[in-house]
This record gives sequence, C-alpha cells and structure tokens, in this order.
Amino acid sequence: MKDKKNAVVLCSGGLDSATVMAIAKNDGYDIYALSFCYGQRHEIEIEAARRVANVTGVKEHLVLNVDLGCMGGSALTDKIDVPKAENLSEISSGIPITYVPARNTVFLSYALALAEVKKSNDIFLGVNAVDYSGYPDCRPEYIDAFEKLANLATKAGVEGNKVHIRAPLINMTKAEIIQRGFSLGVDYTITHSCYDPDDSGRACGSCDSCLFRKNGFEEAGVPDPTMYTVK
Amino acid sequence: MKDKKNAVVLCSGGLDSATVMAIAKNDGYDIYALSFCYGQRHEIEIEAARRVANVTGVKEHLVLNVDLGCMGGSALTDKIDVPKAENLSEISSGIPITYVPARNTVFLSYALALAEVKKSNDIFLGVNAVDYSGYPDCRPEYIDAFEKLANLATKAGVEGNKVHIRAPLINMTKAEIIQRGFSLGVDYTITHSCYDPDDSGRACGSCDSCLFRKNGFEEAGVPDPTMYTVK
Repeated sequence: MKDKKNAVVLCSGGLDSATVMAIAKNDGYDIYALSFCYGQRHEIEIEAARRVANVTGVKEHLVLNVDLGCMGGSALTDKIDVPKAENLSEISSGIPITYVPARNTVFLSYALALAEVKKSNDIFLGVNAVDYSGYPDCRPEYIDAFEKLANLATKAGVEGNKVHIRAPLINMTKAEIIQRGFSLGVDYTITHSCYDPDDSGRACGSCDSCLFRKNGFEEAGVPDPTMYTVK
Repeated sequence: MKDKKNAVVLCSGGLDSATVMAIAKNDGYDIYALSFCYGQRHEIEIEAARRVANVTGVKEHLVLNVDLGCMGGSALTDKIDVPKAENLSEISSGIPITYVPARNTVFLSYALALAEVKKSNDIFLGVNAVDYSGYPDCRPEYIDAFEKLANLATKAGVEGNKVHIRAPLINMTKAEIIQRGFSLGVDYTITHSCYDPDDSGRACGSCDSCLFRKNGFEEAGVPDPTMYTVK
C-alpha cells in the first residue's frame, strides 16, 4: 500500500491558515503543521495555531522559535505602534509598517527543510495577494520564484522529486476565503487575526488585520464570531 | 557625505567564510556578520566565527539560534556518524550525509531579513561548487534563483533597491581560495573546518571537510596551520 501523501502546512492560527489547513486535509494530505514564534508581541497566535492544528487533526505540529525580533524593522516585532483605523478605506497604501522583513522567505525556508526531512512534495501556505497587496512576499510571482528555488535547493529537487508551493487562497478575497472555509466546516471562533490584542486576547477591531477580517465576514454574509474590544 | 556601503556576510568560522569576510572588507564594505547555532554538535564553530568577525573588524556580529536540529535528517545535526576517509579519493559521490536540509536557504533568508533592516544591498557567502559539488545549495544556479527571489520578496526589491547575492568563491578550488586569502592577510589559524572535532576542539583530519582543507593547503603550497588529531 502506498503511503498517504504528506504536506507541510504553515499555520499561524489566523483565518487564512485555518482555511488552508482545511483545504489540505480535504485534499487527502497527512499534515505536518508548522508555526513560528518570531518575536510577536503576544503568544496568542501560537495558542490559536495549536487549537487549529488540534481541530484539523495533524500528524505533527512543530512550533519553532525564530529570531526575527532581534533584527527589528517591523511594528509586529518592534515597539512600534500598530496603525489603527475606523474602516478599510482609511488604510494607507504601499507596504505597511506591519510588514516583517523577509518573513515569508524565512518561514518557507523552514517549511522546505521540514518537507525534505518528512519527504513531503507539497508545502501549503495561506498568503493572499488581494487584501494584503502591500506585502511583496504575498504575490504569485514571489511564490513561483520560491518554488523554483526550492527545486534547486534540495536533495529531493535534484533527484527529480519536485516540491510544489501551494497557495490556494492567493487570488481569493477575504469573503471568498471565509465562504470556502465554511463549506469545509472551519470553526473560525478558534482563530486569531488581530495584530494588537488586549491582555485577555480580545481583538482590537481597528488594526488592518481586524478590518480585513470584519469586512470579510460582512461581505461573505456570515456571522463574525470574533470578540472585538472596539465594536 | 554618502554612507559607506554595507554588506551582510554569512560567517561560519570556516576557511571559506574567513576568506569571504576578507574579500568583503577589501571591497570597502562595512560588515554585518551573521552566524548560526543550528544544532551543530559543537560550539567550536561559533567560537571560530567570533574570532573571524573580531579579527576582520565588523560593524556588528549577530549569532542566531535556528532550530534545524529538531527536524533531523543530517549527520551534522543528528546522532549519525560523520563519514571518515583516508584521502579525498575515498569520499563517496552524490549528496553527502552531512548535507543539512535547506540549510543555505534558511541562512540566506535570515541574511535577507538582516540586509533589509540594515539597508544592505549585498549579501556575501562562501559557498563553493567545486569541492562541494554534492551540495545542491552550493551551485551557481541556486545562488541566481535566490537572488531573483530576494528581489521579489522584499520592500527594498519592490522599491528598486536591488539585492545582490555575492558568492565570490563559487568557482574556485580550495587551493585558489587559500591563495586568495593569504594575499589578503587571512590568518587561517583561527578558522575551523572539521565536522567532528575532539573535545579539545582539534580537527579529526579524516572527515570530508578536513580532507578538502588539508588537500587545499597542499595544492596551494602553503603550510597548513591546523592541529589535526590524525596526522
């Protein structure tokens, strides 16, 4: 009997990665979930990632410490204020201050290492080019470039065992992502998206990530289960 | 006055990276040296990296912990015996068991993050395709693919501030590297290459890395300052 196919899935505990986990599961993969502590201001993301991995049912969940915080350069790892707004139209264009330098490249590199060790040919991640068009490492051409690199970088690639970088949400709106997740039975109550939660873990409701999330639920016509500090 | 140009230089404390550090210095860069603890069996590499950074004179030396060891899959991070041989002709062909999955991709990703934070347009590393042809991530096509990725991945790249991945040793033999280093005044006494040193830090003299090093000094016609356990 052939082994069930494996995939490495990046899991931040957010809405997007919970949807991607459900998609990979639904596609019949055994999942190695991979999460990172990277100097976030809060451990809340990791707790959400553990819940998502647990509910999805994974073969293994690996949480790695990565030292991005010591380099600085982002509102998500530094003591820089996360920008807030009333609604999406107020969000400034361009690359946001919440961008973490080379984050997806570092994350995908670890995923590639894990995929090689676990003999996985597939790496899933929940990047999205529609809502977060400001992040350079969420674009399709970036994903294509990483796939090319992956197949030159590894023993598996050299031996003709091609690695695929799968970003199924890349061209979907937040509303479409939520609808897809609902159709797969994703429970968004256990996910966490906010960049700046309060001490009890409640979402701020006014950072970019909260605004995209709120708006997504509205557009999807689905009740938003998130507890926000600001209504 | 224009700022002096910066470079991030990967520094393992080995012969190759000491030479690359000297080349970057000689080219007029201010250096951010970057080293990694990645589950090596020994801290000796990091000590050597500190000596090299110190002697070269760098702006900053960052040592990051990376969790590659927890993934397994290599004689350099696992409890797998490092293969030994009497001489170079006995080394088996193909990808060696000392290959660490996706190591250079992880290292270069961190270098890219640091380069972006420090506004460096240049990342130097001491990979070499001649002696270590068995490692997929030491080939020129791999380096080119990473440079392409880097310029899609980052804010700097998007804003037209191109990043260059510089691998000046890639087509040199070990003897040529040593000769170049000598011409730049590199003191190889402080470097460390062995995959399997004894408790006092002395090189084994019979792992692939020691054999390439020994042979390089012989071919370069330069005295080998290394203390080997096996003569």
